[in-house]
Amino acid sequence: EILSKEAVNGVGVDQELISAVPSWNPTFVERNFTDAEAAYCKSQPSPPASFAARWVGKEAVFKALGVSSKGAAAPMKDIEILPDESGVPTVALHGDAKAAAEAKGISKVLVSLSHSETTAIAFAQATSA
Amino acid sequence: EILSKEAVNGVGVDQELISAVPSWNPTFVERNFTDAEAAYCKSQPSPPASFAARWVGKEAVFKALGVSSKGAAAPMKDIEILPDESGVPTVALHGDAKAAAEAKGISKVLVSLSHSETTAIAFAQATSA
Amino acid sequence: EILSKEAVNGVGVDQELISAVPSWNPTFVERNFTDAEAAYCKSQPSPPASFAARWVGKEAVFKALGVSSKGAAAPMKDIEILPDESGVPTVALHGDAKAAAEAKGISKVLVSLSHSETTAIAFAQATSA
Repeated sequence: EILSKEAVNGVGVDQELISAVPSWNPTFVERNFTDAEAAYCKSQPSPPASFAARWVGKEAVFKALGVSSKGAAAPMKDIEILPDESGVPTVALHGDAKAAAEAKGISKVLVSLSHSETTAIAFAQATSA
Repeated sequence: EILSKEAVNGVGVDQELISAVPSWNPTFVERNFTDAEAAYCKSQPSPPASFAARWVGKEAVFKALGVSSKGAAAPMKDIEILPDESGVPTVALHGDAKAAAEAKGISKVLVSLSHSETTAIAFAQATSA
Repeated sequence: EILSKEAVNGVGVDQELISAVPSWNPTFVERNFTDAEAAYCKSQPSPPASFAARWVGKEAVFKALGVSSKGAAAPMKDIEILPDESGVPTVALHGDAKAAAEAKGISKVLVSLSHSETTAIAFAQATSA
């Protein structure tokens, strides 16, 4: 008999002014977004809003993972957020972020994104099974 | 022996400028709010803020349900948010929203609302048991 | 055989303009923050932002506990939020807040904080085991 128990491990919230996220800067985009994320954001009605929403989404996931201070080398590219077939933002972890999640027993990360005219906001939740 | 396992199924966050939610428009209110919701919002110190908070609450619940793109005919009236006896906002699903939740095995939806002078924000979480 | 089941009991979101949180007022700080919280906030790059983030964190935890209307005597000092060794904000409940949580079977409260230039925001989640 195998019993599953899911527990919420961490939560994360983050917000930024859309104007504060330098998505016009190719170096910033290249360093922090996967090719699929960048292509998706550029296809949206407001690319700056989409980049900003995804950026705060990555920060919120980072907080939910409960990893210690990120510093300049934070592997934000390792936290990939893409819409599933229903349009629900879905998190895939790679590299260091994946290793950190596995070390903490985190098996699922949920995220939600929102942006107004000026502000992007995100919430994330990490659960272990 | 029956074992229960609860799992978080989806999360949702949403925000709007209070001024962007047309609660002065009877058609908008009639289409998106139940009579009980409208009566409650009108009884509050700032009806526009209450309508806006409830509106983003419905959007957040919608996102947490993980239903695909809503379109113009989104049954926001089917997501009813009313305070319980302690004042905690409580979600009741009706019609299409209820059917969508049942189809996904979602048995409980939690929501929290907040508004500042200018902005309303909400967070929702859907769990299956 | 002991089986654990964790269930999310409540969620809470709150936001405030940083300028609306009177952290320059020693009476406000003394009444609402523990000595450890005040020392921590004063050590941060922007004490007003840190006090505001912690303040909305307390409000979000209060909402997640699902306690009824708080009134002027809300024991915000009983909801203490301090960083753990990884910098993750961690909730400790004291006094009335602790008693209320125990009465509802709440065994864990998670919180996340964020502030932009102008606004502080927090999300909290209460779970029973």
